[in-house]
Amino acid sequence: LDYQHVQVPFEITLWIMLASLAKIGFHLYNKLPSVVPESCLLIFVGLIMGGIIYGLNDKSPPVMDSDIFFLYLLPPIVLDAGYFMPSRPFFENIGTILLYAVVGTIWNVFGIGFSLYGICQVKAFHLQDVSLLHNLLFGSLIAAVDPVAVLAVFEEIHVNEKLHILVFGESLLNDAVTVVLYKLFRSFCEMPAIKSMDVFAGVGKFFVVGLGGVLVGLTFGMTAAFTTRFTKDIRVIEPLFVFLYSYLSYLTAEMFHLSGIVAIIVCAMGMKRYVEANISLKSHTTVKYFMKMWSSVSDTLIFIFLGVSTIGENHEWNWPYICFTVIFCLIWRALGVLVLTFFVNRFHVNTITSKDQFIIAYGGLRGAICFSLVFLLPDFHRKKLFIAATTVVILFTVFVQGMTIRPLVDLLAVKRKRESAPTVGEQIHIRFLDHLLAGIEDISGHWGQYYWKDKLEYFNSKYLQKILLREYDQPKSSIVLLYEKLERKHAIELAEAGQLGHAPSHPSLLNNDRTVITDKKLEDALNPDVLENIQEILARNLYRIRRTGPAYNRHTLPGETEPAEHAKEILILRHKSL
Amino acid sequence: LDYQHVQVPFEITLWIMLASLAKIGFHLYNKLPSVVPESCLLIFVGLIMGGIIYGLNDKSPPVMDSDIFFLYLLPPIVLDAGYFMPSRPFFENIGTILLYAVVGTIWNVFGIGFSLYGICQVKAFHLQDVSLLHNLLFGSLIAAVDPVAVLAVFEEIHVNEKLHILVFGESLLNDAVTVVLYKLFRSFCEMPAIKSMDVFAGVGKFFVVGLGGVLVGLTFGMTAAFTTRFTKDIRVIEPLFVFLYSYLSYLTAEMFHLSGIVAIIVCAMGMKRYVEANISLKSHTTVKYFMKMWSSVSDTLIFIFLGVSTIGENHEWNWPYICFTVIFCLIWRALGVLVLTFFVNRFHVNTITSKDQFIIAYGGLRGAICFSLVFLLPDFHRKKLFIAATTVVILFTVFVQGMTIRPLVDLLAVKRKRESAPTVGEQIHIRFLDHLLAGIEDISGHWGQYYWKDKLEYFNSKYLQKILLREYDQPKSSIVLLYEKLERKHAIELAEAGQLGHAPSHPSLLNNDRTVITDKKLEDALNPDVLENIQEILARNLYRIRRTGPAYNRHTLPGETEPAEHAKEILILRHKSL
Repeated sequence: LDYQHVQVPFEITLWIMLASLAKIGFHLYNKLPSVVPESCLLIFVGLIMGGIIYGLNDKSPPVMDSDIFFLYLLPPIVLDAGYFMPSRPFFENIGTILLYAVVGTIWNVFGIGFSLYGICQVKAFHLQDVSLLHNLLFGSLIAAVDPVAVLAVFEEIHVNEKLHILVFGESLLNDAVTVVLYKLFRSFCEMPAIKSMDVFAGVGKFFVVGLGGVLVGLTFGMTAAFTTRFTKDIRVIEPLFVFLYSYLSYLTAEMFHLSGIVAIIVCAMGMKRYVEANISLKSHTTVKYFMKMWSSVSDTLIFIFLGVSTIGENHEWNWPYICFTVIFCLIWRALGVLVLTFFVNRFHVNTITSKDQFIIAYGGLRGAICFSLVFLLPDFHRKKLFIAATTVVILFTVFVQGMTIRPLVDLLAVKRKRESAPTVGEQIHIRFLDHLLAGIEDISGHWGQYYWKDKLEYFNSKYLQKILLREYDQPKSSIVLLYEKLERKHAIELAEAGQLGHAPSHPSLLNNDRTVITDKKLEDALNPDVLENIQEILARNLYRIRRTGPAYNRHTLPGETEPAEHAKEILILRHKSL
Repeated sequence: LDYQHVQVPFEITLWIMLASLAKIGFHLYNKLPSVVPESCLLIFVGLIMGGIIYGLNDKSPPVMDSDIFFLYLLPPIVLDAGYFMPSRPFFENIGTILLYAVVGTIWNVFGIGFSLYGICQVKAFHLQDVSLLHNLLFGSLIAAVDPVAVLAVFEEIHVNEKLHILVFGESLLNDAVTVVLYKLFRSFCEMPAIKSMDVFAGVGKFFVVGLGGVLVGLTFGMTAAFTTRFTKDIRVIEPLFVFLYSYLSYLTAEMFHLSGIVAIIVCAMGMKRYVEANISLKSHTTVKYFMKMWSSVSDTLIFIFLGVSTIGENHEWNWPYICFTVIFCLIWRALGVLVLTFFVNRFHVNTITSKDQFIIAYGGLRGAICFSLVFLLPDFHRKKLFIAATTVVILFTVFVQGMTIRPLVDLLAVKRKRESAPTVGEQIHIRFLDHLLAGIEDISGHWGQYYWKDKLEYFNSKYLQKILLREYDQPKSSIVLLYEKLERKHAIELAEAGQLGHAPSHPSLLNNDRTVITDKKLEDALNPDVLENIQEILARNLYRIRRTGPAYNRHTLPGETEPAEHAKEILILRHKSL
């Protein structure tokens, strides 16, 4: 037996296996996951395993290594989040999200830090040796909402899209603030005296860390898109580039002390549309599938490790400090959301309701990032107290808030996510209104979001697509893509029902079948006969789907982009049908 | 800048990126890969990089770590090979393959070892200090044909299936022999005196190492198949199990000093058919894609590292030893193939032609396995000579043999692989003959391969499938599966041509289209009208494709497996058509 030789890969594989089997186990009993969030169950499994290890070895089980967490477990989750980020609601609410992420996090850090310092001044609590700087340092790590925990809980409760993106976007983008404040206070702790210069440098760092992350992400994202232009002959390594470039963007940002999370999100969001157009359908399935798989495994491992690391002897218990930490975390977050939302609502027509505000405040879960940061603290005599307080806050938010948020959402009747995809009619109207609003903003000289979006889209189609896409000359509008997708699905269903070759001889059957499929998408809004007609008209006019011209564009006249040959063919077709 | 922190993952990612970009680069110029095999180009890139590193640092570039090779780079390639192994030709030629792999490798080891020892006795060569045992140890590592190198070259030259499986199967299965002989001679080198007991124990080890690998592989393969029964609710982690269990089988075998390569191949081959039936179509695409991707990257990295490791100062040059090593490798392999094939041909009707024998002998490429083993040798004063000789043999076989084998195959007009898939008619006949031969063997009392295959198939459908498959009650015969696949492809093509909804109104178009698709498969063997009819008959009788009964089975009467309800529906349908 030669265990030493294979130890490292063997143990990693076993841990992943354990995590996957735990996931299967939960889903075997269908009722369990609907009551208790998976994250709680996983922490519970971790606690049991930690207990077993502790009982057998009589020493603390190994804690989650911060390096492993930040270098290997976190990136897949953030990459998945960035790649599948619904970009429309994200950019529509980017202002609010940034306000929550930047101002809200700073508010929380200082609120929690100063009020805990106040608690430390009470002589009865025996905490007078914890300095203000240490309290602020602790505040900086405990204040940040955790994307992994938020994702795990909010994926299951299906609140409306805006609410979801507000909480989730905040949890992702506050990384830049957390990194800066945490490192700032940590270096202050080690400095003999703090000059006012250092504080100003700290403020400047916000922009460097955040914008630097954006820049790194954009660079790698565009390079990735450019690389996939040349993979036509070796389809099999296409998915690799998506993962490699994203990971490199994260590592590069971390290397320069920039925000790795921001970098990888920007990279994923930036590359997505170009990569999707360049790589094959199967490669894309693999990319999507593997991303989901990887993030799901990382997520599972993180929660199990959280549980395992909780057991052990590295805690110092102090009732008042720990209880007040939990209370202050709740209070300052609630206050912050109230105040910030008050200002947000003054400038927006589409306001955030008080119910939504409650869920935003209540959904501020803490997770593995705090946990890893607290272990990275430099050694000082109260570190174990901080570890204990962090653990309690995480367990409290994940268990108590995580388990009660679903009943609360039900009780308050918070607006849910709509189950169905938008209908074709809605899509057309949304696009039409976008163009209309961009035009209005242009005429009125107001540089609003529609104006910028339109400009960006113009820049994209004029320059970026030409450089980054392999087959630039065939742009497809999203409606044509949707139609193609529906047709393909329809065809497969027909084939699977064995009715493909015989459709002509059973008209009633065919009719029936098509209604079922289209109904699913259009939700009874139109009656089947009308649908039949629409599909027929679409199919006749989009005679060769690939050759359809681009959608209406404010910057070009119809004749400009449409090749003459194309117009001619349409004429011939119309002539025939007449 | 904090490079230390991210060094390990950053450098790994960069190496993989370099490998992938090199691959893209080669394929940009279409003519290059058709003349020079990719493996040569990659070694060349490695040589250049090694030269650059050597020039810049003025010290030897890092050599490929044997642990990294055996634990991380080799498993993906072997897994891919095992999972996509064409099982029919493999099992049909298993006897010949084992003969080549076991007897052939032993023949080569002792042949090369003893004749090199003879060379060492020549005083003029200054090699008298190399003992017989050291020569045999060297022979044991240089004799084995390398699966990675063989795969890289044979994938490009498209020789006939039997020839391919003979060389490739040998290169995979000789691992057990190599492991045993290498470890045996290495321990003999360290022993003061060798007893005859030790030699017998060594012979016994062959069986332990080989059969132990098979057992480990089977265990993990079946467990993997069983696990995928329960993944219905979490499709997203299905592909993971295929990778995790295969890797665990490899690591476990290595841990017990069994043959990891044999274990992972058996695991992959064993799990394949059950896993494929259990997991979703998308999961399966992901598994296939990722396996190909991973093995392709590993393969690229191995050849680049081979090049990089060649540069440096760890070589001791001795013209006679190195030249004679190359010559003996060629001679003994050629002799071995001739002698073994002579015996094989006496017992088979379907003989191996002399052209095929030449290609088998010539295709005995050496690669990274030898290279890693030579670095694992215990330190002794002539280790550098062995390293130099191994490097030369590898470079000689990969460059000279690898580049000339394609022209030789053309020149000799070796039978090529047929480009098209077997037609439906052929498939039916092959299956019919299998059953017929199994029946003949049964009656005549001869326990041949058809008898055992039939027994295994019976055991599989009677017991294994019930335990390992999620939906056992719906067995599909392969013809039905083929029909389904054709129909699905047909449907997608129709949808993409935009003719799905309108097929009824354009009968000529439809007709045309279907001919094209079916022609591709059936290769003009039948005329289009007959095909139309066949498809219609199939579609009418396989009215609900999923419910077709199992294919003819020697062990059961038709009435037994076919549920009464099923028969009734067929009757009703027939009645209607009359």
